[in-house]
Amino acid sequence: MYKDIKVIAFDADDTLWVNETYFREAEHEFAKLLSKYETENKIDQELFKKEIENLPLYGYGVKGFVLSMVECALELSNYKINQTTIDKILKIGKDMLEKPIELLDGVEEVLQELQGKYKLIVATKGDLLDQERKLEKSNLLKYFHHIEVMSDKKEADYIKLIKHLDINPSELLMIGNSLKSDVLPLLKVGATAIHVPFHTTWAHEEVLEEEKSEEYKTVVKITDILKFI
Amino acid sequence: MYKDIKVIAFDADDTLWVNETYFREAEHEFAKLLSKYETENKIDQELFKKEIENLPLYGYGVKGFVLSMVECALELSNYKINQTTIDKILKIGKDMLEKPIELLDGVEEVLQELQGKYKLIVATKGDLLDQERKLEKSNLLKYFHHIEVMSDKKEADYIKLIKHLDINPSELLMIGNSLKSDVLPLLKVGATAIHVPFHTTWAHEEVLEEEKSEEYKTVVKITDILKFI
Repeated sequence: MYKDIKVIAFDADDTLWVNETYFREAEHEFAKLLSKYETENKIDQELFKKEIENLPLYGYGVKGFVLSMVECALELSNYKINQTTIDKILKIGKDMLEKPIELLDGVEEVLQELQGKYKLIVATKGDLLDQERKLEKSNLLKYFHHIEVMSDKKEADYIKLIKHLDINPSELLMIGNSLKSDVLPLLKVGATAIHVPFHTTWAHEEVLEEEKSEEYKTVVKITDILKFI
Repeated sequence: MYKDIKVIAFDADDTLWVNETYFREAEHEFAKLLSKYETENKIDQELFKKEIENLPLYGYGVKGFVLSMVECALELSNYKINQTTIDKILKIGKDMLEKPIELLDGVEEVLQELQGKYKLIVATKGDLLDQERKLEKSNLLKYFHHIEVMSDKKEADYIKLIKHLDINPSELLMIGNSLKSDVLPLLKVGATAIHVPFHTTWAHEEVLEEEKSEEYKTVVKITDILKFI
């Protein structure tokens, strides 16, 4: 199954390092700032709606998330939100961009083992500069041929990636925590994928049971992928 | 001089299509919104300072620009800015992201002529999704092997690009409107470049006279590059 593989692409956020946890913390902080207007549950729901509404325009990443928080705060408060609170929302975003990198267990061991045997790349969504900075801070840069920041991770995006890499679909193996973004679209374009779940998944990345398939492996920890390749 | 060339990289904003003009318009609109606090000249200066201050964190592109406008508006007004004005600032950004594409003269002719003879790519700074969307809207997608969105355009970034392309520096020719970003760093890494000026240059992209060099060509319009390659 994995004999054709030439390129192994790793998702970054929540596959190589912790990320979703910081978004959950930011949402909690945002809800506290708006607590005099609404319950935390309602604020979470409205922010999620705003993010999805703005996704076609802003894409993924921290900057779009902050712009959605500001817009949501204005609307939820009927444009009465205190101006210094808006400043605090901007600060939440800046703090997210400056978070230290917390590598997930086994990541470095896996990269050391695969280095030189395959072309290793990072394939990630989000802000380009933010992802480059995280890769730099992670000290993992040396293992990768390059980083591909993708505006989305749908079938069409992977077709573009495969063309860009000048390989056949069957020569690409993707490793990632999101079934919806890192696994299912790969299978549909003829590539392979291994799923390494993270404990927290953003609602937008969740997959319905019936969309799942039998054609990929799920492993408990990233070092388990070494058994297969 | 151009006989080794395998890859021709085109800058996008203000080389393929109009961009800086829209930023100037947005700044003017921003200054009007804040006109009761300061003169347009002072507002321009403060916004520029804020953008440069935030550049290491936000990088280039519309989303970072909007976040800097919001922060600047809060500070310039001593946190008294009306909440609906902040909403209008967000709207300026959304309008920028939805602007139609205005191709510059001769671009399509040049791409048609070079297509098939060289690997053509786009090498641009800015928001990934925004640049992909502009390329899509421009109908130029068919001419390019792929788009490289770069977090910056300094020597180190071009060294990364050349490695990523698996070519020698002398095999890369860059075409662009910014001496600072599209021409001078290329010469320093051993690649070649042709300068096609645009009538408007962002202050951050301006180059001092003494930094200029004799090793590149400047042409008046993009079709002039066909005389050399």
